[in-house]
This record gives sequence, structure tokens and C-alpha cells, in this order.
Amino acid sequence: MATQTKATFQNGIPTTLSKREQILKRFKEVRSFTMELAEPLETEDYIIQIVEHASPAKWHLAHTSWFFEAFFLEKAMKSYQTKHPQYGYLFNSYYLQTGEPHCRNKRGNLSRPTVKKVLDYRQHINEHVFEFLENCTDEQFEEWEPIIEVGLHHEQQHQELMLTDLKIMFSNNPLHPAYLEKSRPKALPQSDLNWHHFDEGIYEVGHPGGSFGYDNEFPRHKTYIHDFELADRLITNGEYINFMESGGYEDPKYWLDEGYAQVVENEWDSPLYWQKNSGQWHQFTLNGLEPVDMNEPVTHVNYYEADAYARWAGCRLPTEFEWELAAEPLEVDGSFVDARHFHPVGANPAKTGLKQMFGEVWQWTRSSYAAYPGYETFPGALGEYNGKFMCNQYVLRGGSCATSKNHFRKTYRNFFHTKFSWQFTGIRLAR
Amino acid sequence: MATQTKATFQNGIPTTLSKREQILKRFKEVRSFTMELAEPLETEDYIIQIVEHASPAKWHLAHTSWFFEAFFLEKAMKSYQTKHPQYGYLFNSYYLQTGEPHCRNKRGNLSRPTVKKVLDYRQHINEHVFEFLENCTDEQFEEWEPIIEVGLHHEQQHQELMLTDLKIMFSNNPLHPAYLEKSRPKALPQSDLNWHHFDEGIYEVGHPGGSFGYDNEFPRHKTYIHDFELADRLITNGEYINFMESGGYEDPKYWLDEGYAQVVENEWDSPLYWQKNSGQWHQFTLNGLEPVDMNEPVTHVNYYEADAYARWAGCRLPTEFEWELAAEPLEVDGSFVDARHFHPVGANPAKTGLKQMFGEVWQWTRSSYAAYPGYETFPGALGEYNGKFMCNQYVLRGGSCATSKNHFRKTYRNFFHTKFSWQFTGIRLAR
Amino acid sequence: MATQTKATFQNGIPTTLSKREQILKRFKEVRSFTMELAEPLETEDYIIQIVEHASPAKWHLAHTSWFFEAFFLEKAMKSYQTKHPQYGYLFNSYYLQTGEPHCRNKRGNLSRPTVKKVLDYRQHINEHVFEFLENCTDEQFEEWEPIIEVGLHHEQQHQELMLTDLKIMFSNNPLHPAYLEKSRPKALPQSDLNWHHFDEGIYEVGHPGGSFGYDNEFPRHKTYIHDFELADRLITNGEYINFMESGGYEDPKYWLDEGYAQVVENEWDSPLYWQKNSGQWHQFTLNGLEPVDMNEPVTHVNYYEADAYARWAGCRLPTEFEWELAAEPLEVDGSFVDARHFHPVGANPAKTGLKQMFGEVWQWTRSSYAAYPGYETFPGALGEYNGKFMCNQYVLRGGSCATSKNHFRKTYRNFFHTKFSWQFTGIRLAR
Amino acid sequence: MATQTKATFQNGIPTTLSKREQILKRFKEVRSFTMELAEPLETEDYIIQIVEHASPAKWHLAHTSWFFEAFFLEKAMKSYQTKHPQYGYLFNSYYLQTGEPHCRNKRGNLSRPTVKKVLDYRQHINEHVFEFLENCTDEQFEEWEPIIEVGLHHEQQHQELMLTDLKIMFSNNPLHPAYLEKSRPKALPQSDLNWHHFDEGIYEVGHPGGSFGYDNEFPRHKTYIHDFELADRLITNGEYINFMESGGYEDPKYWLDEGYAQVVENEWDSPLYWQKNSGQWHQFTLNGLEPVDMNEPVTHVNYYEADAYARWAGCRLPTEFEWELAAEPLEVDGSFVDARHFHPVGANPAKTGLKQMFGEVWQWTRSSYAAYPGYETFPGALGEYNGKFMCNQYVLRGGSCATSKNHFRKTYRNFFHTKFSWQFTGIRLAR
Repeated sequence: MATQTKATFQNGIPTTLSKREQILKRFKEVRSFTMELAEPLETEDYIIQIVEHASPAKWHLAHTSWFFEAFFLEKAMKSYQTKHPQYGYLFNSYYLQTGEPHCRNKRGNLSRPTVKKVLDYRQHINEHVFEFLENCTDEQFEEWEPIIEVGLHHEQQHQELMLTDLKIMFSNNPLHPAYLEKSRPKALPQSDLNWHHFDEGIYEVGHPGGSFGYDNEFPRHKTYIHDFELADRLITNGEYINFMESGGYEDPKYWLDEGYAQVVENEWDSPLYWQKNSGQWHQFTLNGLEPVDMNEPVTHVNYYEADAYARWAGCRLPTEFEWELAAEPLEVDGSFVDARHFHPVGANPAKTGLKQMFGEVWQWTRSSYAAYPGYETFPGALGEYNGKFMCNQYVLRGGSCATSKNHFRKTYRNFFHTKFSWQFTGIRLAR
Repeated sequence: MATQTKATFQNGIPTTLSKREQILKRFKEVRSFTMELAEPLETEDYIIQIVEHASPAKWHLAHTSWFFEAFFLEKAMKSYQTKHPQYGYLFNSYYLQTGEPHCRNKRGNLSRPTVKKVLDYRQHINEHVFEFLENCTDEQFEEWEPIIEVGLHHEQQHQELMLTDLKIMFSNNPLHPAYLEKSRPKALPQSDLNWHHFDEGIYEVGHPGGSFGYDNEFPRHKTYIHDFELADRLITNGEYINFMESGGYEDPKYWLDEGYAQVVENEWDSPLYWQKNSGQWHQFTLNGLEPVDMNEPVTHVNYYEADAYARWAGCRLPTEFEWELAAEPLEVDGSFVDARHFHPVGANPAKTGLKQMFGEVWQWTRSSYAAYPGYETFPGALGEYNGKFMCNQYVLRGGSCATSKNHFRKTYRNFFHTKFSWQFTGIRLAR
Repeated sequence: MATQTKATFQNGIPTTLSKREQILKRFKEVRSFTMELAEPLETEDYIIQIVEHASPAKWHLAHTSWFFEAFFLEKAMKSYQTKHPQYGYLFNSYYLQTGEPHCRNKRGNLSRPTVKKVLDYRQHINEHVFEFLENCTDEQFEEWEPIIEVGLHHEQQHQELMLTDLKIMFSNNPLHPAYLEKSRPKALPQSDLNWHHFDEGIYEVGHPGGSFGYDNEFPRHKTYIHDFELADRLITNGEYINFMESGGYEDPKYWLDEGYAQVVENEWDSPLYWQKNSGQWHQFTLNGLEPVDMNEPVTHVNYYEADAYARWAGCRLPTEFEWELAAEPLEVDGSFVDARHFHPVGANPAKTGLKQMFGEVWQWTRSSYAAYPGYETFPGALGEYNGKFMCNQYVLRGGSCATSKNHFRKTYRNFFHTKFSWQFTGIRLAR
Repeated sequence: MATQTKATFQNGIPTTLSKREQILKRFKEVRSFTMELAEPLETEDYIIQIVEHASPAKWHLAHTSWFFEAFFLEKAMKSYQTKHPQYGYLFNSYYLQTGEPHCRNKRGNLSRPTVKKVLDYRQHINEHVFEFLENCTDEQFEEWEPIIEVGLHHEQQHQELMLTDLKIMFSNNPLHPAYLEKSRPKALPQSDLNWHHFDEGIYEVGHPGGSFGYDNEFPRHKTYIHDFELADRLITNGEYINFMESGGYEDPKYWLDEGYAQVVENEWDSPLYWQKNSGQWHQFTLNGLEPVDMNEPVTHVNYYEADAYARWAGCRLPTEFEWELAAEPLEVDGSFVDARHFHPVGANPAKTGLKQMFGEVWQWTRSSYAAYPGYETFPGALGEYNGKFMCNQYVLRGGSCATSKNHFRKTYRNFFHTKFSWQFTGIRLAR
């Protein structure tokens, strides 16, 4: 289902391995990377939910395990019986066809099960997946391997969310605790934006098949793209401060109506996590509170801010298909979470061509998240994975410094509501 | 500006008249139709604001006059000086570049100016428009005639809003007062939906120029449309009750995530204005409370409801371009406000081809309201007319029983937030 | 019931009249004073509800008539049948035992019945009361006369509310319309506060019987009062500005915990209706917007403000029994609504003794509104008149410039929630 | 200050010890009892804040230590310097004169400092208090001993809050975790209420001096009490269920106006923590979810419920002075937290006289929390301890199963807002 044609697996795993060996290796890697990300945490850090849209780390650890239990083990292994029937209620996110989930905004009310119990649960799930992969028939393997693959990509999405949710939690603590104190490459001064031209015409967009993709990337289809230009790099903090200092947040003419209303209501005057200390802009990062670096990409801007910045600059945001057209011939480089910087880094001024297209920050597009012509959801309760969110959200492309590189594809469509900025989101201009 | 090429005026006005005579005639007709709509009201009916998005009738009367004052008279006539400087604050809607407006949700706090004073203000504006049209030079006429035209279309939009806002106001009164007791043609039984097929290909959409259009209809541009089928008529109340009675509102699988959350929160179980009395569905109309007619089009459904109905029926909503492609060859017929039914009427079962494409109810499309490639806003403060709302709203097409026929065009793009149902909104299916 | 012993009527009506003539005269006077207060209004002024606790003038006119219908006519006159059964729903305030009332915060949603219809309803009620008084037996008269008396005092309470509710409505209109343009005596400079001493001991408080009183004034009972001093006059605007200018609103040490939280939340920095224009404090009055007069009593302060002022001044608010003890020997003078100033006036500096004890502004006491020992409510649904509000409200004493003099008694207990300031409320200090 | 006359210490500590030894012993006992209460907790249990009025256990541990630091060590010990300057912001509750505190409703946002760090902080404070008591001069001891005593009573209040706040936290977990699984004495069937009569007259109430008391218990003063009767025991769950089953929650005539509005808004139909499982009422306790025992005292009722129950029963709640008069001659018995039942137990049917006057549940009185005549607050920032809450709260008397016996006095005035029921609150009737 998710893999729409028979595919040779890649994701950095040697194809000389059998398919069972490959998926087992990948399962172990993804599951243990989750534990690596949790390693710097104190027990107390796993519990707290600051806002409805950000979950406690403990919840992410449990939910990603429940996902394998509910969509795979309980269906694929006759002998499997859950040890914790209530976890299906506590750790379901939004799969209403699977049963009523615990209120999303009450995930921080739960001191129990303890972190240790949740880690036991993860281990319990791991063991049963190993057991399945060892003992299943080839037919069973063919049937369930795509679901395991969905489960792994699902866990990789939650790895990214766990980092951004920890960030919002630490940022709400006046002690400004760091998730992990790490250095990253110093950003170099950036030259002016260069513009890359693309010709008008009919293009094919969407996932070509042959490897894993979410349902929302299919089917590949024709679209008419008008000619446009795309900026060669992301907007920097320095450029964004120019916008701020020229009164960008005060002048409604740059803003969508909804956006300006929220600027006024929430008294926004800078990106999320920014604060001015002694006349100097600082931002809270996963490394703690830092002075803002003028040459790094601006991040934690919402759609309204990205759109207003673009209008102020006399440009606009690209559509998702413009972005995809530009990305198609490029090699996927850039800082993903694999680099373990946990923050976007500056572009290489020496490099020519389109830069920072991948990793660093998710790039807002002006495309409302919608079904492609002929779209079909994953079957069953997994059909709720993507389709039911196709309303009042906007597409982001390119991955971020919190995304796993082998989770990412050029046809990958991320999506968030226009008001959200707690993800690593940034700005690339078009015109 | 609004008229993008030199156009022969039509709007039902003989082109043998000079352009000045034409615009004067049209000005008088539009302005007096506003008064005709207000005629059934008691003084008390002009004052009340029930919800933020629906304004008092008095406000509509004043705002449509202020619009001529602020965008035309104060700029075009040197001698003009407003008699009521505070009206620019009280009766501005959302033109922030013109000055700060009175809070939108406080329009119902104002007993003064009295209705009589507002009617005097309307008369004052009329007289100055007449004076201008009589005395202006040809050059001045050429410059300002398009703005007057915008002002007249603007007033026609507010005529529709005035009716829907009065409806929400009367509906909140337990006495169920009728706006106007009128009969309308009895709807006939409807046959099953017939489907019209359209072929895939590149099409041109948007306003072709040569007559009036809003900025958001321009520029005409190419788009790729995949093959599709369109239902020949609107969904009826009877069909919608089938959805309701089969548990449509209780089953999340038909709903967008946001939509189902609102169903639960607001306890929606039927369209706006419906109530069940003694086991029989009734709806509040501008004629008062009436039993629901099974053969009339369902109306006052929001986007979530239209989308859920479509999914329940195994179909989907059309895109705005699919709708426009289908509408292009058709004659504009149907019940507009000119018919003075103030409610949609049933389709003619004897008629073949696409029916009820125009008038009756605005048809929800699945197209998020967005700029066309190369879109440019009206210049100056009028640029806020459309562009700043291009976010988190969906396009509706076709006009309604509250729309003036000579205000409507096939390229006309109406738009509302997904939660709203106080307009005459309905459902046409595609697949 | 209300009249706890056989009383000679007074209220300014010659006792040479028969009891029937007296009550008829009083009925006519009270009912027509309501109409006198409505006389300056435009039709539009009757409709609007700004906040839940302030009702439209139309509602007051209807409610005071419904009160006679529900508690008197429908019970006392066999033949009486209401012409408007829905009015019992629309115009009931809070008598749950009489039937469910229309939502309190939706009284401004009703354009119908029109003002004219409500005036017809008032007339209809009047005629039936006249008919009853003319035709009833002496026995019936004895039974129902006390209820009519309650209805008249009830209407006098609503006269006061109508004025304060109109004031809040007009104050929310940026045009600052005056209810009635009238002059009032110019206030003279005030001398320093003089203090009157009272000795500790057992005192009797509460209504002594022999004339009308609400249930909450009974029974007269003993209480122990510790010695105290009472200020000879009300606090002036000038004195209150001293408090403001010395940082009174910024320093939590003067405030109750709840009060300071509300100061911060609501950004209070002055009494209700005050605004600073060009460096000069103005207040909105029923005469329109006026500069604040330093020698007039401060008014429209809530309990928190009164209490904070007292603490700032090194004093406290009196208890209701301290006030009653001090008032007992005094003649009831002062500006009541009968003076038609519609605003408190300054004290007479030449007068000695306690001044401004009556009329002008309701004086906040530190007494939580509670039942007297042995308290019994009025019987039946009228029992909801007072008793159910004895919680989280504070007692005010003395009447105001919006109170009818013949409605007032020295044992009269008014009560409001601590946050409210839309009544004519002011400050007298004790220590 | 707090000790208004020179007092022999008691609190269960032999008076043969020197005053230094006594306070040191008591300090150690109180501080270690806090740790005993925390002993059953997992690290995860310390962090969560469910509602604004209930704080995390970690916060209580830190706040009670900060209290000694801010009000004692930093002032009394010249050499003392805080190691954690930010704790004064994080762990101040509401002492605005001490500096701005962290938002009360954000106490659950803090994963850091960790529990371990907070325990280190407690130890650090303990050591400095020991050091002071060892080295201070007699003069210093006389000056600061009363403050240490306030700090210990303060910590005992927070011990009670910690238990009730843990209860609300565990109750919000669908797994229903027990704080501590313990049995308590089985309640015996109760006989009908017996009534004890008290004569009218002047009485003295308030703290007589000679031992510790809060400022709000002073000065002892005369009051006039009318004759009354007091029920001999608390209302049981069985009696309360009679109220519920006779429609008590549905009939507004039993309720204060505010109370009934909240019943409707919050859909209250039983005490807090009750739920009906398979037709049987259960309550969440610190021992987990249990069937309701008909003979135990009802608890977790708010003021509105207590008042409504009393009205339904044809009685009323006592005043705080009626309660104090009745309590004066009695021995303080009953289950306090010292019994470690963590839940109220049934009365002894064999005992005569007033029962359950102390311990078990706080008894709501009808007395609004107010200053006694001549009341003076503690000096300095400690003046915020009690006085600023004297508004819109009601007095409770008697202590509870979560109160330390040596923290309790017969003149002790507890107080809460009328809507709260998360404390161990119950009902004793008067008439």
C-alpha cells in the first residue's frame, strides 16, 4: 500500500541484505535513535505538556510503540495480546476509528505510567517485532512489511516532534535549561539573493513510485506551472531583523487579515523564542539561550510571518510545485538531524546554484494542503494519517535540522496550521 | 483599474445611453434597491448585532455610503467635506490604510446615529454623487467611473449580507419574526443525480476582461484540469436528511479532522436554522419558521458539512476551476434576489443539462481561496478589498437567491471561512 | 408579608386618602415616572445590551409589567389571561420557580416585540390593575395590596437600573450621546474630613416593622458594635485623584488579592467612565462627557477600589450596622432621583454633622451580604427576590441620585458583586 | 508578633526542654513529616499541575523552604546568601512585596530544577536553620523564633495542600493510581442527628493569646450570638445521596443563585471525585477508587453544595462563631493527618455529645471571611499572609484528616472560595 510498486530498499542500508535483514536493521536503527534523542533528559523532562499541540516526551515514546501494537502486532500476530489495554486509550493520538483517544490537551496530566514502565513497553514491542520478523512466512512478510515501514516513518516524524516539543517545554522554563550543549559550524556572511528562473509549462509532480511515500504524495500527476524565479538560499536572521526594524510588524499592509489580527492579539514582534536582552536579540535554542546569529537562517516563523516578510520584500512564497520542480534535479544535501546540530546552519557562500533546499528549516509554501487529483487514502484506520487534515493548513517542503535524512523525500509534504511556529520553519522567496 | 479593458456597460442598462447616463441610472437603481430591502423593517430591527460576522442593517446602510465618501467623494471632489468626521471611524469595515475602524464586534453597541440620521447621510452622499456626475470633466469621469462601479458592486455585496444578517438576527428571537411573508414556487420531486463528464486538458480560467470584475478574478490564466464529472443539480434537503439519518454527524470517518472537532464542540446535528418540532424538521427562513421541503436545495451548510456530505455520498466537492469550466457555455438563469423569493427554489425536473448552476445557493468548492498567478490587488487602500483574505477560506461559486443578477459573473469568486453557514450556501457534487 | 405589621402608608401620599386611593395614586405615580425616564429616548436607545448585567430599556419596561402579571394579576384575577404567553419567557428575570427565563445575556438580541408593543403591554397591565383596585373585595385588597406594593418597589429598583444601564450603553458609543442635557448645582470646595465617634455596645438593627420593607431587612435584631468613627462626608473626586496620582493602582499593598488581580487583568487605572483627554480627567455622565469636578463625590468605583482607597487613607469601610447606627437619628435629605440631577452633587460645606448620608451615591460597606438571624424569605417564587443572592456580594447603604426617595429606607440593603461599578457607588470612610 | 503574649510551647513537645531545644525539635519533626508525605511518590508525580489552585508536590517542597529563606535566613543571618537567586521568583507564591512571583498557573511548566535539586535546597535551608539556632544570641532568638514558628505552621498548611493537590493530580489519571494503599477503620451505622442547644448572649470569640495563632484569629472580641442548635455529627455520604436522589441538584429552590448557575454550567451532580460505575457510586481517594461508604462523612463538597444540602434539610450552616462557641469546652479529638488515614472516618455511634468537631473534614460555615474588629496584619510582607484574602471567601472550621493536630487550634480560621471542593470539606448543620 504505502510502497506503491516493488521497491529496492535504500535508506542507507546495503541492498545486499535480504529484505528481512534490511527492515530489521532499519527497525533497530530507528528505534534506537529515539532512545538516543531521549538520552540527555532527566525523568522530570518527560512529563510536561505546555500547549495542546506539543506532547510530553514520554507520550511520544509510548505512542510510537502503541502504533506498532495497534496497526501491526494486534493484527498480524494471532498470539499477541496487549499487556496494557488502557494504553490504547492513553497513547492513541487521533485515530478515531481505532477507538476514542485520551484528550489531546491532557497528555501532561499523567505521571503514570512512569518513564520506566514506558521504556519496558517499548522493549516489549521491540521483542515482538523481532519475533515476527524471525518467524513469519514470506506471505506474511509481504503483507506486513509495508505497515512496519509506515510505523518507522511515523516514529521518525515523532522524533522530530519530540525535539520541537522539548524545545517549547524548556523555553517555558525561566532557568533556560539546554537540551544538550553542543557547538555547530559558525555561519559565514551571506551574499545577496540570486534568482533562478524556471520556464512555464506542464510538469509532472508527486511521488513517482518505486519507493516509500505517504498517501498524500500520490498520484503523480500533471500540473501547469507559470514561469517563476526562486531565491538561491533561505532568508537569514539579519534580513528578518531588517523587516522587524523597518516596522514590519506594525504595518498591516504587509499582512494577511488573519495574520495581522493575531499580531495584535498576541503582541507578536519577533519570531518565536526570540527575546531582546540588553538591546541584543537572543533566541532560545536546544543549546540554551544564544545571541541571534545574523547569518543563520531565520526559523520559528509562522505562515503569516513568512508571507508578510515576502510581501515586504516585494516577493511571494513559492507554491509547493514550484519548489518541487526546482528540487527535482538536485542532490539531497544539507543539515538533517543526522548532523546532530539541532539548529539550522548558515549557507555556504562559496557554493553556486540553489542552496539550503534540504534540511535546515521547513520552507513555507503558499499552497494550501489539499488532495492531489485522484488521491486515495491509506486503507482502514491508517486512512486518518493524512487525508483528514487537508483543510486550512499550508504545505512545507524540504525537511529540517530535526528531520532524519532517510525519512525525507523531495515529494514529501509537511503541513501545519498558519499560526504555528514551534517547528523549525523558515522562508525561501519566489517571484 | 477594476475594469481592466474599456468596456461597454451592460448590467441590463441600454447601451444607447451615454456612459454618464448609464452609470447614473445604475447608481440610482442599486441605491434604491438597498432601500427596498430595508422597507419591511421596524426601527428596532436595524440595530442588533448577534455575532461578530453579521452586522446591523443600519451599519450596512451607513457603511455602503461611507465607502463612496472615503474612496470617491473625498478624493474626487475638492470641495467635498464630510459632515460627520466620526463616521469614518464608525462605518469603516476593515480598510486599515484608511484609518483605524471601530471594533467589528461592537457594531451593535450603537443606538446613535439614529436610523433617520443614517438615511440622511445616504441622501447626502447620493446628492454629491449626482453633482459629480453632472459637473465633472470627461477626464475626471474616466478616472472615477471605475471607482463608482466598485462602490456599486460593493453595495450589492452588502445587500446580500444585509439579508443574511437580518436572518441571523430574526432567527435568534424566540418569537420567530418573519422578515417578509412571501410565497415561492413549490418545489417538485427530483430525479436522481445525472453526471456530466468533462475531459482532461489545459484550460483558461479567470475573467477575460472587457467588463467589470474584482481584482481576484484576474488575470485569466492557463490551468491543467483532470477529467471529472459534475452532478446536474444541487443536493436537496431530502438527500441531506438521508445523510443525517444514517448517522452522518456521528461518524468521524466522513469528516475533516477540524470539522468533526467542531461537530462535537458545537453539538451540530443539522444545518443552521434547522430545528425539530414534534418530530418534523423545520427551518427558519426570511418568511418565518417553515417545515423543511424535501425537494428544495439544502442551504446554510458550512464547508465541513458540504465536504462530509460529499464523502458520505462517495463523491467530492468540485474545484473552482471545474465549476468554471462547466459554467462557461451556460446561460445565467436561476433565482437571484431579483426574483424576491429570498430562499432557494427547487430544480425543474423537466430541464436537461446542468441545472441550478446560478442563483439559489452559493456552491462550496474544494479550492482554497488563493491568488491567481500574476495577481495584482486594486491600487491603494482598495487593495485590502480582496487580497488580504486569501488564507484559510474556501471559494464558493454561482451566486444565490440573495445575490443581484447584474452583480454576478461566471468568474465571480465568493469566499468564506469553513465554519460559516449563515450565507445561502449549498452543495453540488463532483467525482 | 412584606409589610410585617399594619402600617399607615406614607411615601409622600396624604394618609387622608383611603388605602385604595393611596395605592392607586402611588401606582399611577410610579408607573408614569418610568415613562418620564424613558421620555428622552429614541426608539434605537431601547434595544441594546452592552454587558450581561445591564439590560435594554425595553426589557425593563416589559419586565416590570410582567412582574405585576405573573405575581399579581394571574393569581388574583380569575378572569385574567395573558395576551402574550411568550412574554413570561422573554421578560422573566431570574424567578426559576416561575419557569425558565430567556438567557440573561441575550436580552439585546430582541428587536421584537417593538417598543410600541411593549408600551401597549404596559398599558394593558395598568388597566387591569385599575380594574382590580376598583372591583376587588376588601378581603382581596388586604391579600394583594402587599404584592402590589412589592411590585411598585420592584419597579422603582428597575427605574434606577434603567438609568445606569442606559448610561453604560451611551458610554460605549464613541459619539458620547447625552441621555439628557441638564445642569446641576456647582460643587463647592470641601473642608477636611471630620470624624464622628460612636460608642461600643449592643444595638438593634434591621427594619422595625410598621411600614414596607424587603424580607432581607427583617427581623430587627441585636448586634454588638465596637466603637468606631465615621467620616462626615463622601470622598471627593479630588481626593480620589490623590490616591491615583500617588500610585494607588500600581501598589498591591493597598489591594485585596482578588482586586489587584483584576486591576492588572483589566488595566484599571481610574473609576469607570473616566478618561483622560488632553491631560484632563473627564467622565462620561448622563449629561454627556464632562471634565471631572474635584468637589463632587467620586462615583462608579467598585468594592475593590473603595476598599483600596480606604486602606491607602489609613482607614477602612464601615460595616452596614455602623452605617445604620449612624443614620438612625438623621433626617433623610440629599439628592435622590426626584431632584432629576442624574449625578451626585457636592456636600454643603456650611452644614455640620454627618452629610451626604442619603442619596448621591450608594456607599460601599465591608459587610458581606448575608441573612439576618432568623431571616425568612418572602413566600413562594417571590422568595427568590433576595435570599438566593446572599453570597459573594457586599452591602451598600444610603441610596443614590438614581434612587426614588420614597423607595428608600434607612434599613435598605442594596448589594452588588465586588467587581461592579456601573451603579452610582461611592466611598465613605470609617476607622 | 504572631505569639501575642509570652507562651509556654506545647504542640506535643515536652516543656522541660529549653525553648531552643523545643523549636529545634519541632522544626525537625515538621520538616521530616513533609518528607514522609513525599515518600510514596515516583519522580514523575512531583511535576504536574492540573489546575491553577493546586500546585505540584515539587513546588510545595521548594516553596516551604524558600519561605524560611526569604522571611528568616536572608534577614536574620548576615552571612546568608542564597545559592539560587531565581528560586525567589520560581517559588514565591503570592508575596508581591517580596518581588514578582512566577505565574501561579505555570508551576507545572517546570521540569527543572529536578526533584533532587529541590531536596538539596531543602537540606541547605535546614542546615542554616540549625546553624542559626545553635549560634544566635538570646536576643536574636527572641526576635526570630516567632518567624520560625510561622514558617513551621506555614509548612504544615502546605503539607495538607500537598496531599489534596496530589489527590487532584492522581484523580485526573485514567489509571486511578493510589497515593498509598492503606486501610482505615470501617464506619458504623449512624443514628439520627441529635441537636445541641446554645443560649443567646454576648460571647467572646477569637484567640485568647498565650500561644501561637495567625493574625486573622486576633483580637479576641465580643460578639452577640442568637440562640441556635447544632447537629451532633457530620452529614454522611448516605444522607447526601438522599439529597442527590431526591433531585437536589436539579431543583433551583435549594441553591444560591451563583451556585445553581455553576451546577448547570459544570453539570455537577455529585461531590468532586465521585463517579457511578455499574450503578454504584464510587469515589476516588488517596487509596485509589473505592465504593462510597454510606456511613462515612461526605467530603469534597463546595460551599454551594453544603448550603444547598442544608436548605434541603430544612436547616442552615452554622456561623463561625456558633461553631467556636460549641467547640470551646470540648477536647480536641478526631482523625487528623497524624492518624495517617488520609480520609475521614465515621463517627462513633456510642459516643454522646458533639462528635466529629475536629479532624475528619473542614466544616463550611456561613461566615464570609472578614477581619475581626481591630484586626492588624502581621508586619511587613508577611502581612499578605491572610488579610488580602478577606473577600468573597467563606470560613471553614475544625481541621481535617489532612491537617496536623499540633497545627490546629479551635480559633483556627480556614477559608476558601465557594466553588472549591478539592480540600477535605464537609457539612455540619445548624438551625
